Amino acid sequence: MDICCSPLAAAPIDVGQAAEVATAFKALSDPVRVRLLSLIASHPGGEAHVNTLIAAFDLTGPTISHHLRVLRQAGLIECERRGTWVFYWVVPAALERLSEVLTVPAKTAP
Amino acid sequence: MDICCSPLAAAPIDVGQAAEVATAFKALSDPVRVRLLSLIASHPGGEAHVNTLIAAFDLTGPTISHHLRVLRQAGLIECERRGTWVFYWVVPAALERLSEVLTVPAKTAP
Repeated sequence: MDICCSPLAAAPIDVGQAAEVATAFKALSDPVRVRLLSLIASHPGGEAHVNTLIAAFDLTGPTISHHLRVLRQAGLIECERRGTWVFYWVVPAALERLSEVLTVPAKTAP
Repeated sequence: MDICCSPLAAAPIDVGQAAEVATAFKALSDPVRVRLLSLIASHPGGEAHVNTLIAAFDLTGPTISHHLRVLRQAGLIECERRGTWVFYWVVPAALERLSEVLTVPAKTAP
């Protein structure tokens, strides 16, 4: 999924774009997914092995896989299998677009 | 609520901060709330009358009030009653902190 949009404060967002943005933020509305995203993004080399991610939580592999799938479907991370190993990395452009959506132009400051 | 934190990509976020961040993003995980936030943030003068907000949706006043309350509890907007009118405005610092959380330092780009 590609995430739109202009900053929310620039102009009223349209219905379709609001749905896209809300879906992306929904992927970030769970503490485990926020931690996963942070672990992946901050991992040396920018990518993390799935076992490293599972080891960081007191949760089952399938639960972590579910959360990784939600992040992937939201376009925030990608993964690749290399032999028997699966590696995850963040999609910087997706995070940057979401970051931009929340940017507040100076003129709207109180 | 004050929203922490350092960029997710800077270092693994701790459990408490991840919960805070997830709560803030949960407030933005609904399309109506994304549109409300955008309407308020982009309103001329930086604040919007509650009736203007209600008029923008095909939803009841109580439903809009519920969504505004969620945004307010997340610290993303504030409001003030002036006589019989209630005005809403965004909290730029809260949006900027959330925006910063999603910033990706160049080093983690693939």
